[in-house]
Amino acid sequence: MGNLRSIEWAAFRDLSPEEKTPYLGDNGRIFHTLYAQQFSRAQLDNLGRLATRIRGIAKSKEGMLFLKSLLTHKRAMLYFTQPSTRTFLSFCAATEILGMPHGEVRDRATSSELKGESAEDSVRTFSSYFDLIIMRSELGGLAERMAWVLSNADRPVPVVNAGSGKDQHPTQALLDVYTLQRSFERRGGIDGKHIVFVGDLLRGRTVRSLACLLSNYEDVELTFVAPPSLQMAREILDQLDAHGVSFRLTDELLSLLPEADAVYMTRVQDEWDEVSGESAAIDVSRYSLGRGELDRLKQDAIIMHPLPRRNEIAIEVDADPRAMYWRQMRNGMWIRTALIATVFGCEGEIEAYDAGTMV
Amino acid sequence: MGNLRSIEWAAFRDLSPEEKTPYLGDNGRIFHTLYAQQFSRAQLDNLGRLATRIRGIAKSKEGMLFLKSLLTHKRAMLYFTQPSTRTFLSFCAATEILGMPHGEVRDRATSSELKGESAEDSVRTFSSYFDLIIMRSELGGLAERMAWVLSNADRPVPVVNAGSGKDQHPTQALLDVYTLQRSFERRGGIDGKHIVFVGDLLRGRTVRSLACLLSNYEDVELTFVAPPSLQMAREILDQLDAHGVSFRLTDELLSLLPEADAVYMTRVQDEWDEVSGESAAIDVSRYSLGRGELDRLKQDAIIMHPLPRRNEIAIEVDADPRAMYWRQMRNGMWIRTALIATVFGCEGEIEAYDAGTMV
Amino acid sequence: MGNLRSIEWAAFRDLSPEEKTPYLGDNGRIFHTLYAQQFSRAQLDNLGRLATRIRGIAKSKEGMLFLKSLLTHKRAMLYFTQPSTRTFLSFCAATEILGMPHGEVRDRATSSELKGESAEDSVRTFSSYFDLIIMRSELGGLAERMAWVLSNADRPVPVVNAGSGKDQHPTQALLDVYTLQRSFERRGGIDGKHIVFVGDLLRGRTVRSLACLLSNYEDVELTFVAPPSLQMAREILDQLDAHGVSFRLTDELLSLLPEADAVYMTRVQDEWDEVSGESAAIDVSRYSLGRGELDRLKQDAIIMHPLPRRNEIAIEVDADPRAMYWRQMRNGMWIRTALIATVFGCEGEIEAYDAGTMV
Repeated sequence: MGNLRSIEWAAFRDLSPEEKTPYLGDNGRIFHTLYAQQFSRAQLDNLGRLATRIRGIAKSKEGMLFLKSLLTHKRAMLYFTQPSTRTFLSFCAATEILGMPHGEVRDRATSSELKGESAEDSVRTFSSYFDLIIMRSELGGLAERMAWVLSNADRPVPVVNAGSGKDQHPTQALLDVYTLQRSFERRGGIDGKHIVFVGDLLRGRTVRSLACLLSNYEDVELTFVAPPSLQMAREILDQLDAHGVSFRLTDELLSLLPEADAVYMTRVQDEWDEVSGESAAIDVSRYSLGRGELDRLKQDAIIMHPLPRRNEIAIEVDADPRAMYWRQMRNGMWIRTALIATVFGCEGEIEAYDAGTMV
Repeated sequence: MGNLRSIEWAAFRDLSPEEKTPYLGDNGRIFHTLYAQQFSRAQLDNLGRLATRIRGIAKSKEGMLFLKSLLTHKRAMLYFTQPSTRTFLSFCAATEILGMPHGEVRDRATSSELKGESAEDSVRTFSSYFDLIIMRSELGGLAERMAWVLSNADRPVPVVNAGSGKDQHPTQALLDVYTLQRSFERRGGIDGKHIVFVGDLLRGRTVRSLACLLSNYEDVELTFVAPPSLQMAREILDQLDAHGVSFRLTDELLSLLPEADAVYMTRVQDEWDEVSGESAAIDVSRYSLGRGELDRLKQDAIIMHPLPRRNEIAIEVDADPRAMYWRQMRNGMWIRTALIATVFGCEGEIEAYDAGTMV
Repeated sequence: MGNLRSIEWAAFRDLSPEEKTPYLGDNGRIFHTLYAQQFSRAQLDNLGRLATRIRGIAKSKEGMLFLKSLLTHKRAMLYFTQPSTRTFLSFCAATEILGMPHGEVRDRATSSELKGESAEDSVRTFSSYFDLIIMRSELGGLAERMAWVLSNADRPVPVVNAGSGKDQHPTQALLDVYTLQRSFERRGGIDGKHIVFVGDLLRGRTVRSLACLLSNYEDVELTFVAPPSLQMAREILDQLDAHGVSFRLTDELLSLLPEADAVYMTRVQDEWDEVSGESAAIDVSRYSLGRGELDRLKQDAIIMHPLPRRNEIAIEVDADPRAMYWRQMRNGMWIRTALIATVFGCEGEIEAYDAGTMV
């Protein structure tokens, strides 16, 4: 249940992410999933290994039936009041793989918040019926607050943050790390690789979270390619500095491509524009990949994108073997399955499943 | 399938609730759940006992798997065209506990009613695909009408009224009775207890239904505390009179608190205001519980609320051991599970489940 | 996976429906379901037989559990961005009968298409998490396009078109054929029967698809009864001519009723009106069935309607034994179950299920 029972809300709230980590689990076991930064390298490695094992088991009908037997006695609530079909469906599939039925809240207009209830009361009541809360909200600190509330209720229920406000989207970061782990599996892993981030680095919570997680790896080199107004935020750069991660900032993509092991593309998130039309002034084509850019990429580099995309990756790139973004999506389902299995302590059963029956 | 096949719609419609009861089941077995008043004390006792047994069985994974095997061959439709996340999720969980998959209709805008179809035709067609209809509608008599229609179709399907218009919300009344049963289990049960209802008693269908059900118990004393314009309706008071239930009306809460065994708080339901702003003129603080009021309450009294709340219960009350409203919510899931199990005749199997395996 | 990998999109798109058929499956096995015309008589007969067998098996709890074991290891996505509760719930039930959990996309407003993603990218990403895509869209060719895209992805996923634009609704046509098969089971089948179509034949994709499918049967006679402005489209009539199907056009219903084996009623689809109020000028009563019309119908004729209805069938007709439309709905669930079972190759297992355990 985490150690959140042992601390007052105001005291917890004011801690730094690093200081919060010990409160999110018990003895290194994950209970609440709130921040990308809460994951240690050991946890990242374990999750990746478990995801790969689950995927292997899922190849056979017998394996799928085994996986479905693991959590069929539990129930998940998907509380998604911020639009996100992709993350929603991915979690939906992850719970189904583990046999967990789920209930959904997707539209605040159908909710009793219309009747004047606080979001906190809503989530707390809804949690009475479920064993796991997966939540996505436009309210920045709601997942954190709910984790504290639900740890301090009669019946502690784990929270998975599936995206909160502009800030955090930890399971996206997990799937990105997992995609890098798998892609570099036979090339010495993530250590020592050069990852180039491109696009709206200021407002893409995805890239912010991933950049932080990469500080768990040795000799990683990061380059941030963005128009000056959308460059990576100072606070993230400070964190990288604090962890001794080497990085560069630039607004020029082309010359960097030959050095990249992974190019992480993002779209301009104009839904966060403070001044209407602000983003429209940016020449997106300078932060895009088309057939021409592909020629400059190494043969074994990979192209990632959290999707949805607009024009920053041309459709013809999809057919290139280095295009990893569709598989990246599917990795999301497997790593989320691994995460949920871990929260409920199913790693042992999964490891013990007879490898002989695996394809 | 109930005896509704034996009576014309117009004749059934014009009966009193008491006269309707025999048509809603067969020989005391519940088929349709339409009104709080249809439940006899024996049925209330049986449902409460079954709910507690189900909760016990659900504590182990083996028990959960047993419960899920009971109705995995049936399908439920949740037709919720009136907003209610809480009741929706509770029924969702109840069907999942019994292994029933479900289909959902939650938004009339996605429905074919847009194409000019009557609500009756819609529910009738949708019912072709399901074995149980759980419905919530802003149309007062729709659940009753559908029960008649579906009893007279080729393939009778039971209806559970999950709230209809201003009038009835019978499973809320069941969960309230169940909460009282459990809370007074070691104090002689509900008989002889003093229940104080507070707030908007005119428009809260919850309290109307519960007040009626309490006439099944001996020597119960009811007090209705409300601003004069929101006091309990004459027709309910007449029913209580007819059943010889003792009650008082007042607009003053404080002096009553020391006598109460249960205080049932409600919020002002201004969504039913006929004149805009009508409710805003009421001084809600006089019908609220805060730390001050708690001091006047007996040590073993309980505080209930159907939720959602606004300000009528202060947040700091949540930590008081007498605050029962969160557990009341969870009781709703168990009693609804018991109700559905009863409609499908699973009581025997559940009673027979080896108590030795229970925690 | 179909043979769609072997052809370019532009080349495929420009084929006639008949020419497209071989690309939709492998050696006569159905992979994608896009058009009514893709089904051969053998396939229609097999699907009908399988649906009836499934319905028989589903009568017992043991049978239902057997059916649920068939596809419990697969997952379906219901992507319904065009309103249709009926078809949605029917597919929902069909997947549940086969034990398949599903994810839902029903409202484009909650989708990431808001962020500027193409519908094609959306469906492709969503498909990463699922094994079957059931889609309904107001975009005419989207299902076809997605079938091509998903056949050409790393992981081919079958598509079932659950209605696209004005054009195609193949599973509605399947359920209509299945209803005719069952109704005429003891009267020599569909061959030689006279089917009268009534109402908005121009814009009802249901009747367009069904008329095409009936060209698979011998000596069928079709009559199209519609106001001149809503008469069956020339292109469909040309197809019937090409297949040597005998048909008549008229705007007069009454005199035809005594000859009909089946009367297929439809509603005026004024949601497709190009000029507002266009349909309101039509005297719908001339294309309606009431008690008076019933007297003219043969005793063993059947009345069908795809529902939803407005006034074109009077409520009192519902009680007539020839009214087949409610059962027609339920047939939709069974034939869709049979279709999905066929796509995943479960026919053998279903045929082999011990008939001795069937009711």
